[in-house]
Amino acid sequence: MSTVTSQLSISLDGYVAGPEQSPQDPLGRGGLRLHEWLFGLDTWRAQHGLTGGDRGVDAEVVDEMTRNVGAYVMGRHMFGGGDGPWDETWRGWWGEEPPFHTPVFVLTHHPRSALTMAGGTEFRFVADGIHSALKQAREAAGGRDVSIAGGASTVRQYLTAGLLDTLQLHIVPIVLGAGERLFEDVGDLRLEQAAVVAGPSVTHVTYRVSR
Amino acid sequence: MSTVTSQLSISLDGYVAGPEQSPQDPLGRGGLRLHEWLFGLDTWRAQHGLTGGDRGVDAEVVDEMTRNVGAYVMGRHMFGGGDGPWDETWRGWWGEEPPFHTPVFVLTHHPRSALTMAGGTEFRFVADGIHSALKQAREAAGGRDVSIAGGASTVRQYLTAGLLDTLQLHIVPIVLGAGERLFEDVGDLRLEQAAVVAGPSVTHVTYRVSR
Repeated sequence: MSTVTSQLSISLDGYVAGPEQSPQDPLGRGGLRLHEWLFGLDTWRAQHGLTGGDRGVDAEVVDEMTRNVGAYVMGRHMFGGGDGPWDETWRGWWGEEPPFHTPVFVLTHHPRSALTMAGGTEFRFVADGIHSALKQAREAAGGRDVSIAGGASTVRQYLTAGLLDTLQLHIVPIVLGAGERLFEDVGDLRLEQAAVVAGPSVTHVTYRVSR
Repeated sequence: MSTVTSQLSISLDGYVAGPEQSPQDPLGRGGLRLHEWLFGLDTWRAQHGLTGGDRGVDAEVVDEMTRNVGAYVMGRHMFGGGDGPWDETWRGWWGEEPPFHTPVFVLTHHPRSALTMAGGTEFRFVADGIHSALKQAREAAGGRDVSIAGGASTVRQYLTAGLLDTLQLHIVPIVLGAGERLFEDVGDLRLEQAAVVAGPSVTHVTYRVSR
């Protein structure tokens, strides 16, 4: 069976987003600093349709974490938008060629038809819960891995439900002081360190998860 | 000038001690799990008067973090005991040959004469604050490093006051869910990743600290 993975950038004080998150600002105040290590990388830039950038340990990590993914699951805010019924003209904020290149299952309370984008990404909307979304993602992945893409609350739901096999944390040397914690009310997790990669500014640690 | 360092074991959710800490249980509920990676190491066992144990990456880390220390500063609870006036017969809970082998400056609100122990440890009691304790420790260290030994609240006071040069975190793959956070109300810290060592079960990351 394929592996269910997730990866998140986390501050030293355990936050995966800053305070005052909103549909317009899902990373929260200061939350963008969690992701700055990514922006200069060639592999990240290529995924977002840009050229140039650095090749190095961090870029290898990013390549590695997407290489075997056959489907993604994400929360509605990560797709883009608020919580009400869908405006069917809204196609998410990832642009016409999103960086996923696979089926992406978007958790929502409001059913909607699938959206086929350029470059192989298809957004499919799942209104009957996280187990259903994972089941559909597994089938779509066809033996490849399923990545729980985010946001943090979506990852926490899968973590709490015991559905994640591995969790990779990018440990960023910042202190946010407030915001959204990954490990809030997740119950009694058992984690085992499986791999460590030291980047120039952040540390990437992969954990096996069990309950 | 000598470097002011500190090192702490921290859970993935940012706790350096469990909940329900007390003078009798300074690690709090579950807090001992933060330190389990240490107990099998030859170097840790030798520091505590025991023989045997493992030699490996973790043991090297422990050696490295004590090698150049010329003096320690610790809070009163780490020395052992409550908050009232001293019982002069109480010599702390580190035994007659504590593992420090240098002067150790104990923060307290109640003056007390120094205690000379076996093996080179001398406990000196400082009742006029963290700056005074650090100044005295620097002088005693004679150019070697000063280590802020703990507990967590003592380290946090030095961190918040901008007096730490380096902070080493041993990142332990457990989730405590509650307890004492290292980075609670520490203000706007600037941290820079300086070194990463992957142990078999925990990751050791050293950060340079500035304000």
